[in-house]
Amino acid sequence: MYLDHAAATPCDKLVLEAMQPFFSDHFFNPSSPYAPAVAVRRQYDEAKHKIAMTIGAKPNDCIVTAGATESINLAMTAAADGHILTSAIEHHAVLAAVKRYAHTIIEPTPKGSVDLKKLEDSIKSGTKLITIALANNELGTIQPLGKIVEIVKHERDRRRQNGNATPLWLHCDASQGFGQIDCNLARLEVDLLTLNSGKIYGPKQVGLLWRRASVPLNALIVGGGQELGLRSGTENVAGVVGFSVAIDRAERHRKTESKRLMELRSVIENGLQQAFPDMQITGDRKRRLPGALHVSFPGLDAERLVFRLESRQVFVATGSACAANKGSASHVLQALGLDDQYISGSMRITLGKLNDLSSVQKALSIIIEEVNSEYQRVSK
Amino acid sequence: MYLDHAAATPCDKLVLEAMQPFFSDHFFNPSSPYAPAVAVRRQYDEAKHKIAMTIGAKPNDCIVTAGATESINLAMTAAADGHILTSAIEHHAVLAAVKRYAHTIIEPTPKGSVDLKKLEDSIKSGTKLITIALANNELGTIQPLGKIVEIVKHERDRRRQNGNATPLWLHCDASQGFGQIDCNLARLEVDLLTLNSGKIYGPKQVGLLWRRASVPLNALIVGGGQELGLRSGTENVAGVVGFSVAIDRAERHRKTESKRLMELRSVIENGLQQAFPDMQITGDRKRRLPGALHVSFPGLDAERLVFRLESRQVFVATGSACAANKGSASHVLQALGLDDQYISGSMRITLGKLNDLSSVQKALSIIIEEVNSEYQRVSK
Repeated sequence: MYLDHAAATPCDKLVLEAMQPFFSDHFFNPSSPYAPAVAVRRQYDEAKHKIAMTIGAKPNDCIVTAGATESINLAMTAAADGHILTSAIEHHAVLAAVKRYAHTIIEPTPKGSVDLKKLEDSIKSGTKLITIALANNELGTIQPLGKIVEIVKHERDRRRQNGNATPLWLHCDASQGFGQIDCNLARLEVDLLTLNSGKIYGPKQVGLLWRRASVPLNALIVGGGQELGLRSGTENVAGVVGFSVAIDRAERHRKTESKRLMELRSVIENGLQQAFPDMQITGDRKRRLPGALHVSFPGLDAERLVFRLESRQVFVATGSACAANKGSASHVLQALGLDDQYISGSMRITLGKLNDLSSVQKALSIIIEEVNSEYQRVSK
Repeated sequence: MYLDHAAATPCDKLVLEAMQPFFSDHFFNPSSPYAPAVAVRRQYDEAKHKIAMTIGAKPNDCIVTAGATESINLAMTAAADGHILTSAIEHHAVLAAVKRYAHTIIEPTPKGSVDLKKLEDSIKSGTKLITIALANNELGTIQPLGKIVEIVKHERDRRRQNGNATPLWLHCDASQGFGQIDCNLARLEVDLLTLNSGKIYGPKQVGLLWRRASVPLNALIVGGGQELGLRSGTENVAGVVGFSVAIDRAERHRKTESKRLMELRSVIENGLQQAFPDMQITGDRKRRLPGALHVSFPGLDAERLVFRLESRQVFVATGSACAANKGSASHVLQALGLDDQYISGSMRITLGKLNDLSSVQKALSIIIEEVNSEYQRVSK
């Protein structure tokens, strides 16, 4: 019972099938001149085209990277000589990348959203980039991108009137939420977008950075000039082909899968809430990824709970899975101003393709048993 | 008849087999806390340990990257505030990365080696890094690393005597040549080493940068803090497991494979030389990768030749396969000062696992036929 789809997702069977020919058979360097290599180049381009189409982009505005972290780092270079605004609950990749430049980090609302008032007030005349996730990776809270777009447009108007030629761009890290939320660029209206293959049943270490053609980037990795000179290195053909199948499927099944996940989540959420009336649900309950549930059992040690659940084959997380989080309290929950007892009793459940009703019901009863048993232990 | 192993190599069957479980089954994030994820972390660490052992390194001094280009870019950060020395015949990845910092590019000897005298004379008091490939990727010429190590040691002694505290490091890009040359660090005596999985029958987009613990690097990609904080992003478990199998096999079969390749090369080299006494062999014929052969047919257009050979299923290159090389003459051959007619008549043949005696003999006779036919066409 894997309830941690925000940490990693398995490669879809069709994704892996599509990748297979490119390891040992069509292994050619896409830049080589002979026919089989040219064919590989064509398949790479087609895969990239498919990825671009899925979000309503032109392939030439897309840069394939080795994952969302690299995409995010590359996106920040747009504002290398400017000021960057972001939120305190962003992923470590964003926070670490932002800290290399002039920046302001804005405290979120108690519900885990960007504080729009603070955001607007924090824009300086030299702010070049605002970077906000599509949805928070711990809480699942969907960020108010539409309203941020309005703020950005308003600020652009103001700059135009004031003769301030500094551009202002909006970057969205959609690592979490793609496949559950419509990410068509015509709807999102952002200027840069990060996508992560490894979170949507594609291969790991494959990502995308889309950017409006007018946004200048500084390559982090230079060399052979691949990816329009913005990311050199022999192309990851197998990875990109896999990513293209994954993103196509994620978008195709988005509506039905979102509905399904929301129903499964209700089963767990309602079941837990009934069993534990003191349980707190963190984040905005309305604006939330369909598969995301973040709960706190005040007074419990969630790390202990995770290990007890693990012994019964239920896999959940206390927060984001990355090296930076080892042995430290979640920076997201701290930014929300939660009491320590809520923070240490927090558990993240993220549902996905590996879950169905019966597995979710089984997991629910095990979680209830283990939380009860932990409460009994603590109360002794 | 694939004679372009320097451009790309197919994944070894055993490599691909070792990778398979990590796509859809053991897909967990290695930083997640539950047992199956911890098992994945252990397998990742074991694979990295195996890679490190193969070159005589400690795993903690190794940074996994998304390929040699990234490794090279990361290596250069060691000298961000210093001066870098390199050779004009290095790979585009090295030349492009070096150009971001204070640097001097040294002309090579006519045989395609680093000019040791020029190298020594070009060292400034602020030179922090010398970066030289193990072997040139177009000619296969093995670079005189042992002698460069001596120069570096001598310069370090001089600095110690002069009270100059500037460190001097030697980086070696061993993308070409691993599996044909002994790359044990105790023998190489370099300070940084780049390895490329995709050139030794491992998966593409996986590379390694080893660096002596005392060499400080600046991460290019920050975030979750993976790879000792020097390269963030969810680990590429499948890729690293594949790389570990590939590097182990490459090293294990190095001696027998080198001997085999040298014999196969002799067949082509002698056959061509007999058929075309005017053919020129470029590079140092003695210090050369066993599988590498670089020939020029003065007066012929090698690009035409490559396409004619392609139509007969013989795949060779005119030079390095990367986007930067499209439609421009080889910077390596230009640096060697070759006449234009030699440059445009140049062909790179790189042998490897896909070749055996019968395929090489067949390829040889086709090449002879096509070169003859091209010479006839030109002489009309």
